[in-house]
Amino acid sequence: MMVQRFQRLIIGLSISIFTFNASISQTIKDNINSKSYFNIVKAITDTAMLEGKAHNMLRELCFDIGPRLSGSPQAAAAVEWSRQTMLKLGFDNVHLQPVMVPHWVRGKIEEASIVNSSIMGTVPLSVSALGGSIGTPELGVVADVIEVHSLEEVKKLDKKAEGKIVFYNRPMDPKLMNTFAGYGGAVDQRTLGAIEAAKVSAVAVLVRSVTSRLDKIPHTGLMLYEENIPKIPAAAISTVDAELLSKLIKQEQKVRVRLRLSCQNYPDVQSFNVIGEIQGTEKPEEMVLLGAHLDSWDTGHGAHDDGAGCVQVIEALRLIKILGLKPKRTIRAVLFMCEEFGIRGGLAYADSIKKSGLKHIAAIESDRGGFTPRGCGVSADSQIVKKINRWEYLFEDMDAANIFHDGSGPDISPLRDLGTVTIGLIVDYQRYFDYHHSANDTFDKVNERELELGAAAMAILSYVLAMEGI
Amino acid sequence: MMVQRFQRLIIGLSISIFTFNASISQTIKDNINSKSYFNIVKAITDTAMLEGKAHNMLRELCFDIGPRLSGSPQAAAAVEWSRQTMLKLGFDNVHLQPVMVPHWVRGKIEEASIVNSSIMGTVPLSVSALGGSIGTPELGVVADVIEVHSLEEVKKLDKKAEGKIVFYNRPMDPKLMNTFAGYGGAVDQRTLGAIEAAKVSAVAVLVRSVTSRLDKIPHTGLMLYEENIPKIPAAAISTVDAELLSKLIKQEQKVRVRLRLSCQNYPDVQSFNVIGEIQGTEKPEEMVLLGAHLDSWDTGHGAHDDGAGCVQVIEALRLIKILGLKPKRTIRAVLFMCEEFGIRGGLAYADSIKKSGLKHIAAIESDRGGFTPRGCGVSADSQIVKKINRWEYLFEDMDAANIFHDGSGPDISPLRDLGTVTIGLIVDYQRYFDYHHSANDTFDKVNERELELGAAAMAILSYVLAMEGI
Repeated sequence: MMVQRFQRLIIGLSISIFTFNASISQTIKDNINSKSYFNIVKAITDTAMLEGKAHNMLRELCFDIGPRLSGSPQAAAAVEWSRQTMLKLGFDNVHLQPVMVPHWVRGKIEEASIVNSSIMGTVPLSVSALGGSIGTPELGVVADVIEVHSLEEVKKLDKKAEGKIVFYNRPMDPKLMNTFAGYGGAVDQRTLGAIEAAKVSAVAVLVRSVTSRLDKIPHTGLMLYEENIPKIPAAAISTVDAELLSKLIKQEQKVRVRLRLSCQNYPDVQSFNVIGEIQGTEKPEEMVLLGAHLDSWDTGHGAHDDGAGCVQVIEALRLIKILGLKPKRTIRAVLFMCEEFGIRGGLAYADSIKKSGLKHIAAIESDRGGFTPRGCGVSADSQIVKKINRWEYLFEDMDAANIFHDGSGPDISPLRDLGTVTIGLIVDYQRYFDYHHSANDTFDKVNERELELGAAAMAILSYVLAMEGI
Repeated sequence: MMVQRFQRLIIGLSISIFTFNASISQTIKDNINSKSYFNIVKAITDTAMLEGKAHNMLRELCFDIGPRLSGSPQAAAAVEWSRQTMLKLGFDNVHLQPVMVPHWVRGKIEEASIVNSSIMGTVPLSVSALGGSIGTPELGVVADVIEVHSLEEVKKLDKKAEGKIVFYNRPMDPKLMNTFAGYGGAVDQRTLGAIEAAKVSAVAVLVRSVTSRLDKIPHTGLMLYEENIPKIPAAAISTVDAELLSKLIKQEQKVRVRLRLSCQNYPDVQSFNVIGEIQGTEKPEEMVLLGAHLDSWDTGHGAHDDGAGCVQVIEALRLIKILGLKPKRTIRAVLFMCEEFGIRGGLAYADSIKKSGLKHIAAIESDRGGFTPRGCGVSADSQIVKKINRWEYLFEDMDAANIFHDGSGPDISPLRDLGTVTIGLIVDYQRYFDYHHSANDTFDKVNERELELGAAAMAILSYVLAMEGI
């Protein structure tokens, strides 16, 4: 199979230019068989590669609007940009769905230094406040640093942590081939680190950036507080500085750090999920959802996370529409607000579906960056995975014919309880955490072909499921 | 299978740190079964991801030495760097193999402009002399431009091309998923364009850069002359400028361009292939070759093409060596000189093997960039492909378990006639031609994890073949 596929690719030089014409439309009207799906796949991928618009849309989102922190003016601008883009493209039923979102502002002051090292003197450290963190007093927190590698280790510190800055320094395990597994194995330090440190009377938290790279760029991300536990400030520190700090602690034992953050939490504000559709011709009340999240962190462009997913969702619908495909069931695009601060948009959406009873047979999310598609991850029981597996062959030409078990997306995960089959676009995953949540997550890091291919993959899968059900 | 694999990756959080120890060495000494290969694969990939050296070696090659045009002082420096690196790492039988190579020098002048456009006036164009091209007269060639899209079209031009600059403007077909197929479908304009244009009395050639990107960076590459056909100068033009030139020709019909190149061909010079080995314990006279090419174009770093391959070959041997693995057959690293100017090193090597009769059972080349490995391409009959297919399962954890038919490498291709099974490392191919042969092929475009994974894949495959034969 593989062998044949590669030969086809190599010999593919002679493939003639595909023109989408009336005969295909006729085929679509006919009782669909696998042969015609193969033609539709070709029409979709050819159009995506010849004149895909995802990359240009991402350029607008990254440069005209910029990063889209939940509750920020740019997030509001992104909502309006998405709504207008969907209207311009002629999507059906374009509308906004209200979501209340946290409003955290980074502020202008964000700095840390090692102070009074006998070897190095004062050494500035690259830090980035974690999302949701309180600020420090105006002149900062100055305290001795204690290095740990897990939440469990902090629990055992007890009195030793009192008045100190707890420095979490467990790296992502580089040996794990799948970087998402590496991320999952390290991120608890960022999300729960401040809670555990506060329980043992620490005054602040520094967390090694959760990235696979060794560099000077801090990677931010969500952190949490717990009721009745004191709130202490928390910042990510770059991996290069984490290594330095660790080395210095080993040599000098007593290392003092000053941390200054002027970030602040404000009351929740009103924002929106942005929704548009191609209505189904036979069962318009049954949905296949394509999703991504419109909000991002504020230090880069939010290009891979998750601008890429947003423009892929819009582009997938655009491809289906301009090719004149008429899905039996409705294909709905949802750009969720506020994934980064607790999947608020995803929860609000699922809540509304629970109330309306609108049947969502499947939801497909792109939230793993705009890299080369490898396949899709189906979060459902193995019977369902088998059913989705029927369509694997449609992704062979783009070398993305892998149906994995598990790996759907965060925003659509609340739909699982309502019986929706949730699916994630799986892409090449080696580079994602190089950029993730950092100043490096910028437009230039997204390759045009890779991005457009992902949009094509979403168009193909959503169309087939909207035609055939599950 | 796929399903299980992904589950393993996701659940992989709990995988303990692998330490290579005596029990593994014992296993290797035992009669090898598939279970132990699985352990060896884990040892190799863990070591590559934890402390791989390919990325650091590539940094040296790119920054300390730079681009390595055949016949240049930098190419000579790269030979010496490779030799010393292999000696430092303790490889067996490190030696140089003489190869005579062309010596073409780009020169300092390389410029083109549209002159006297009634709409735009004078417009500078981004161009890069093609490798092997003669220079223009000192004040350049100034001539009307005639646009074509194939060699066949030029043949039919006849008198119409006399005294003109022929402008080849057929793009890579973006619809082909595999960019190597797109490249193969466009590159004849670059290699043979000057010959056909000279036959119809044109005075120079501009060739649209063979790249999948639309940008201002010209992509150079080899061009050829034919005996008894006049030699005319040839340059690549950036895709953005090719589009502009084409548009202007459509609007103004008569567009004149000035082209100035001071490149020059000198007599062939002496250079070398660099060879090192891990000698086999049982059949040292039988070889598994790991290859890549040490020369590169001169406009970038030659990072993906093919610095990446060179450091992967060295790293693959290093991994096998430091893990104490003892292959039955010899594993030989060959860094070939002068792939870009006609696989001179590859031809010289095959010639020497023909004379010595040294049996090469397999040769594995990395010359598709340092991207995420996807599998390997076996250029042999389907019986052999099936045999290699036995080892597919060893590449499942790194998600590279695809054995393709065809797709080996240029430098090892002359070995095929001697009965060697030639194999190429197949990697993600969407980005390669963005960088290929251009100023964009620099160190920063190579991702560390992706590069090290490729080295691990080469180590695994070469070790298994050296143990088991084919």
